Amino acid sequence: MAISHLHCLQSVRVSFPCHPSVSNNYYYGRDNFTRKSISLVYASTNNLDRDLHLQSKVETVLDSVKWDNRGLAVAIAQNVDTGAILMQGFANREAVATTVSSRKATFYSRSRSMLWTKGETSNNFINVHDIFLDCDRDSIIYLGKPDGPTCHTGSETCYYTPVFDLLENQQDKEDKLALTTLYSLESTIAQRKGELEVPQSGKPSWTRRLLLDEKLLCSKIREEADELCRTLEDNEDKPRAASEMADVLYHAMVLLALKDVKMEEVLDILRRRFSQSGIEEKRSRNSQA
Amino acid sequence: MAISHLHCLQSVRVSFPCHPSVSNNYYYGRDNFTRKSISLVYASTNNLDRDLHLQSKVETVLDSVKWDNRGLAVAIAQNVDTGAILMQGFANREAVATTVSSRKATFYSRSRSMLWTKGETSNNFINVHDIFLDCDRDSIIYLGKPDGPTCHTGSETCYYTPVFDLLENQQDKEDKLALTTLYSLESTIAQRKGELEVPQSGKPSWTRRLLLDEKLLCSKIREEADELCRTLEDNEDKPRAASEMADVLYHAMVLLALKDVKMEEVLDILRRRFSQSGIEEKRSRNSQA
Repeated sequence: MAISHLHCLQSVRVSFPCHPSVSNNYYYGRDNFTRKSISLVYASTNNLDRDLHLQSKVETVLDSVKWDNRGLAVAIAQNVDTGAILMQGFANREAVATTVSSRKATFYSRSRSMLWTKGETSNNFINVHDIFLDCDRDSIIYLGKPDGPTCHTGSETCYYTPVFDLLENQQDKEDKLALTTLYSLESTIAQRKGELEVPQSGKPSWTRRLLLDEKLLCSKIREEADELCRTLEDNEDKPRAASEMADVLYHAMVLLALKDVKMEEVLDILRRRFSQSGIEEKRSRNSQA
Repeated sequence: MAISHLHCLQSVRVSFPCHPSVSNNYYYGRDNFTRKSISLVYASTNNLDRDLHLQSKVETVLDSVKWDNRGLAVAIAQNVDTGAILMQGFANREAVATTVSSRKATFYSRSRSMLWTKGETSNNFINVHDIFLDCDRDSIIYLGKPDGPTCHTGSETCYYTPVFDLLENQQDKEDKLALTTLYSLESTIAQRKGELEVPQSGKPSWTRRLLLDEKLLCSKIREEADELCRTLEDNEDKPRAASEMADVLYHAMVLLALKDVKMEEVLDILRRRFSQSGIEEKRSRNSQA
């Protein structure tokens, strides 16, 4: 749903400068937090009334957040395309207000007692497309697109330490990112691709066979797409349709691996299409329908 | 990557009882936290040595977590299949130890000053497949599969309050979940399906046309699958392959909408296949290769 609002929210983005002048009028102490005054100053040459109105609305939303006794709420940055949790920090009013106006994920550093925008040093900003509050209004998601690796270690995300591997004494293995099903599958296929040069004894895995035989792979993709269609044409049951879609997805992802294309790139394309009035527009433009 | 370890970690699960007896020997005060002693007691009839060894390892991992001055770390529950952030709470040592042993996402309730396992009242447990620590070791992901809606409101996740909609005065609209690209697309298609009975003037959207014309839809799915294959066969460039995959995915998802199948069901199938030695096994079993 984040996508569908990209267009209508352009107006918000336009009326807010990218790097607003936000007065540093919050005091953050060790044990308490005092909000001295509300005076976020947004510069706007063209539409002052509109900006003041928006500023007032931002203040209302910020008032509704249940800040803890330190004036903070948990802020989680999530990749809008892959769903990967990139990092987690804390945000105060000013951090959220800055994120709203700049569209760059901004946090409050408890160790340095100051605002910090992720990427201000590394240039790996997280470009925020939408912000969500939870039911208790004390937890925030910054849903956005990272410019590069989020972790200061250079890792794509900060979550690369798997507890069950540690318990299995597998801490010597290279870091393992927290991956959800689609990206875990992608990673498995990539691993098989990386092993192609290694001679293997015994029966090769199905993925290995597909990777080594483009003709077989393409015949399977066409076959699985056909079988998916037949679940509709022949009125087959739901589990059959889900299973055929799983086959289509898996085999197509093997092809993507051969082409060095990531699922994230595919999803990026879909997001852009739908935020620009969608595939419909593309289709009508190309008269493919 | 979570998937690939499901199998090897069965041993951990087996040696841990589902609901271990964990002694409540942590004191949680308002301003400080005292770990009085380490004496998690795991019952095991068959393999006491192994359990003691594992218990020791769990303690070592818990020692590595950077607990705050309240003895807590942020704990985020994420859907292993969709990537949706289900909820965020806090965990102390005991909560994480309980999650490791029971495989049910468990938190520490700051308001009630006690452990609570998500689902203990609603039965909507979050079945944890893997646990990840972040680079600073003060933030935790419980990667798992929810039995039902996670939020106490009945919402699928706790994050259904979009800030930019509030700023656009769209708070009257029904709740909008924080959805990543794939699920935002799924939601858009479902919305179009829900509008099929509503007469529309003007040119119908491409999605509407596909939903109303199964023959057209299936011909497009077969055509797009063929075009995806040709990016490999004809050695077309990467952007072309990504674009064709986006077409395959979108059109296939329109078919799934007609069949009332969710992408989550498809990913659930893929996860189970790969955790049971994968599609390879299925293929070799069925001699489809």
